[in-house]
Amino acid sequence: MQALLTDIAAVVGSGNVLTGDDVTQRRVDWMSGASCHAGAIVRPGNTDELAAVMRLCHAARQPVVTHGGLTGLVHGGEAAPDELVISLERMNAIESVDPIGSTLTVQAGTPLQKVQEIAAEHDLLFALDLGARGSCTIGGNIATNAGGVRVIRYGMMRQQVLGLEAVLADGSVVSSLNRMLKNNAGYDLKQLFIGSEGTLGIVTRAVLRLHPRMSSERTALVACPDFAGVSGLLAHLGRELGGSLGTFEVMWRNHYALLTEESGRNTPPLPPHWPYYAIVESLGNDDAANTAQLSAALESALEAGLIEDAVLAQSDTQRQGIWNIREDIEGLIQHLAPLFTFDVSLPIPDMPGYAAELERAVQQRWPQGRIVVFGHLGDGNLHVSVSVGDDEPATRRTVERIVYEPLAELGGSVSAEHGIGLEKRDYLTLSRTPEELALMRTLKRALDPLNLLNRDKVLALEE
Amino acid sequence: MQALLTDIAAVVGSGNVLTGDDVTQRRVDWMSGASCHAGAIVRPGNTDELAAVMRLCHAARQPVVTHGGLTGLVHGGEAAPDELVISLERMNAIESVDPIGSTLTVQAGTPLQKVQEIAAEHDLLFALDLGARGSCTIGGNIATNAGGVRVIRYGMMRQQVLGLEAVLADGSVVSSLNRMLKNNAGYDLKQLFIGSEGTLGIVTRAVLRLHPRMSSERTALVACPDFAGVSGLLAHLGRELGGSLGTFEVMWRNHYALLTEESGRNTPPLPPHWPYYAIVESLGNDDAANTAQLSAALESALEAGLIEDAVLAQSDTQRQGIWNIREDIEGLIQHLAPLFTFDVSLPIPDMPGYAAELERAVQQRWPQGRIVVFGHLGDGNLHVSVSVGDDEPATRRTVERIVYEPLAELGGSVSAEHGIGLEKRDYLTLSRTPEELALMRTLKRALDPLNLLNRDKVLALEE
Repeated sequence: MQALLTDIAAVVGSGNVLTGDDVTQRRVDWMSGASCHAGAIVRPGNTDELAAVMRLCHAARQPVVTHGGLTGLVHGGEAAPDELVISLERMNAIESVDPIGSTLTVQAGTPLQKVQEIAAEHDLLFALDLGARGSCTIGGNIATNAGGVRVIRYGMMRQQVLGLEAVLADGSVVSSLNRMLKNNAGYDLKQLFIGSEGTLGIVTRAVLRLHPRMSSERTALVACPDFAGVSGLLAHLGRELGGSLGTFEVMWRNHYALLTEESGRNTPPLPPHWPYYAIVESLGNDDAANTAQLSAALESALEAGLIEDAVLAQSDTQRQGIWNIREDIEGLIQHLAPLFTFDVSLPIPDMPGYAAELERAVQQRWPQGRIVVFGHLGDGNLHVSVSVGDDEPATRRTVERIVYEPLAELGGSVSAEHGIGLEKRDYLTLSRTPEELALMRTLKRALDPLNLLNRDKVLALEE
Repeated sequence: MQALLTDIAAVVGSGNVLTGDDVTQRRVDWMSGASCHAGAIVRPGNTDELAAVMRLCHAARQPVVTHGGLTGLVHGGEAAPDELVISLERMNAIESVDPIGSTLTVQAGTPLQKVQEIAAEHDLLFALDLGARGSCTIGGNIATNAGGVRVIRYGMMRQQVLGLEAVLADGSVVSSLNRMLKNNAGYDLKQLFIGSEGTLGIVTRAVLRLHPRMSSERTALVACPDFAGVSGLLAHLGRELGGSLGTFEVMWRNHYALLTEESGRNTPPLPPHWPYYAIVESLGNDDAANTAQLSAALESALEAGLIEDAVLAQSDTQRQGIWNIREDIEGLIQHLAPLFTFDVSLPIPDMPGYAAELERAVQQRWPQGRIVVFGHLGDGNLHVSVSVGDDEPATRRTVERIVYEPLAELGGSVSAEHGIGLEKRDYLTLSRTPEELALMRTLKRALDPLNLLNRDKVLALEE
């Protein structure tokens, strides 16, 4: 590898080839804090440098692992000593803003929050939003087809990308920087790179779609008497709020009660004895009308028995107080560690049965075991945390089977938004048919025949 | 081919292998009325039959052309005597409706309008809508990534598809009938088949996403004094109506005046002397609130000088009267034939200059030449008709160059929503880079190495 690194240093500068402590000091997994074991970290400054690096790696049959903001949860950033890490941290410029066409052209290493802020400066909205906004990068958001808390209104990252540029395994550059909302001129190549977790190419730049910014954002926390109330409320708000429903997040009582009364970490805006709590947001441009519409919809939901109680945030502080309960992952870890976290999707009507059966199965095996459930319910997406007292690999496998196996029959997915990485690879067969997996391998072989890009992530090539 | 047809008849029944007059009586192009020249038309009754047919074709190296509703405009349905047509006309069942999950599972040969109607019966909306709704099929909508008049609110066909099933060139069946809104379990294979015009696989079934149905749909026709008014109005309505803006269609005066006063075909709700006319629609659930919001937005647009005049439809008849002007393609053909029609996208600010230059270039060469422009302006998509007195192939090539060549510099597309087919293949290089075309060929070779599926459509394999 040393000769290769010398050649690479000639391209990117020796200060941008990190080795030794500079590598091991980096954490590749924010949850476990595991450090980086790659042979070296290479930091190209632009697409041309990256293309040259990949041509060298291709000639040397050198596998690489791409790093964005390292906020992933499925070990997609892990790298072995015989692998090189390509970090896009220096490629973080906003290249251009087109306020009339409502597009933003950015380099892949740009943090999500910076993109949100630049859009807001032009009175526009970049619609993707998720907890890791300060650290995660646009390239990582694209590679994993990120989701988050606005999917119900604006779709996932896939819907926010108009065009992109990617460097392929052989160092060729596919520049598909389309800025048009509609472009049916041949295959839509960007789709290949969105959500394929860096296994088909390295995304270097993207044209992002912006939306009109909504000046009024009203937030309510509601309590539901049962799951029929939760799903009824979702349908009710879909009808009553029309295009304004911006968020529909649900916490099971085991989440809400733990992070309020039980832990004392957050003040509960509603008492914690109801089985389900939902955070709903309505987005609009006329604050009075938006508030009136949301209030009326909640009132009729109360009359219809879909909800038992509701509180409408009257200030940013109150709004943040509600969100803090939902986003208090630190609290979850502190009170439940060691714990395993999961990200699944399944049909909404199957959710209460799935979660109840999960709790039963866990407690049958570990009487002190606990589960906590919350998620983007409007998108069919639940996050499940399971705490059984230890986090040994064998325990993890047992818990994984309990969580994942019922999804096959329900037509659900072992990954709603986190991706597959290394962590879920063995469970892909629960959500995909042999013919689908065969076609995925056909694509991987066609685009990366030497298996250089994020080797063995998502799917192992030879099986 | 005879031996193969005998084998195929054993699979689908001899009544479903059409030859002779039964083939030539079919028109493959609704605009020209050209008839079908295929060796035969095969009508499989289900996926298994189609898979068996494709296994036979694959073994015999027999190229096929897939037919849906034959409403395409780029000669995608043309078939040579040495090709077989696969018609999906018998595969037209609605397989299931899930009103809670808001999904519909249908066979590919189902007409769009039938899908819209079934969704409405469940008080839900299937969001794709276009003029050919009565004839075009879901499979064709998927294969061409259809657009239409609701893209600004709901996106193109790609956004309406949650899962699909496709038969590959070798007869294998990839069943990827996902029903989840979020599913990041490996590559999103359905994207390969959406918009690739049947060249990578034959779509047989699909899971479609439904939306809450909007009970209030208010339509206005407005006149703008200049293009700054048009683009200003779009931004204004994006802000003021928020998620409610459902349509933003624009007619240049050359369209509006021709199809009202000049031809006498439609009564003009507004006098035809303004340079631009826009049809705007606002979708909501509370008719009074929706009407008030739209009225207020139009009033402030009037005050801001973005529009000169406006009429809000007060009945379905008035609404239909407005749409009849926009959708009167028959009138266009009658008054301008012979004519050439185009479907392009380009940045909105460049539209007035592009259209004016087009008119200048046409009239410089053909002093009696006329152009007519209308389109889905909110999506950056214009439809241009050019009439120069004859429709000889050489004339067509000259006009095509005038229409398409300026798009390269503007970053526009030679196809916004109609696709490439045979008609635009030679102009693909204006909208795509050599690296993009190379990657498209890599995909085609990986999925259809024998070049059996819609051979030479979209891109020629050997160039």
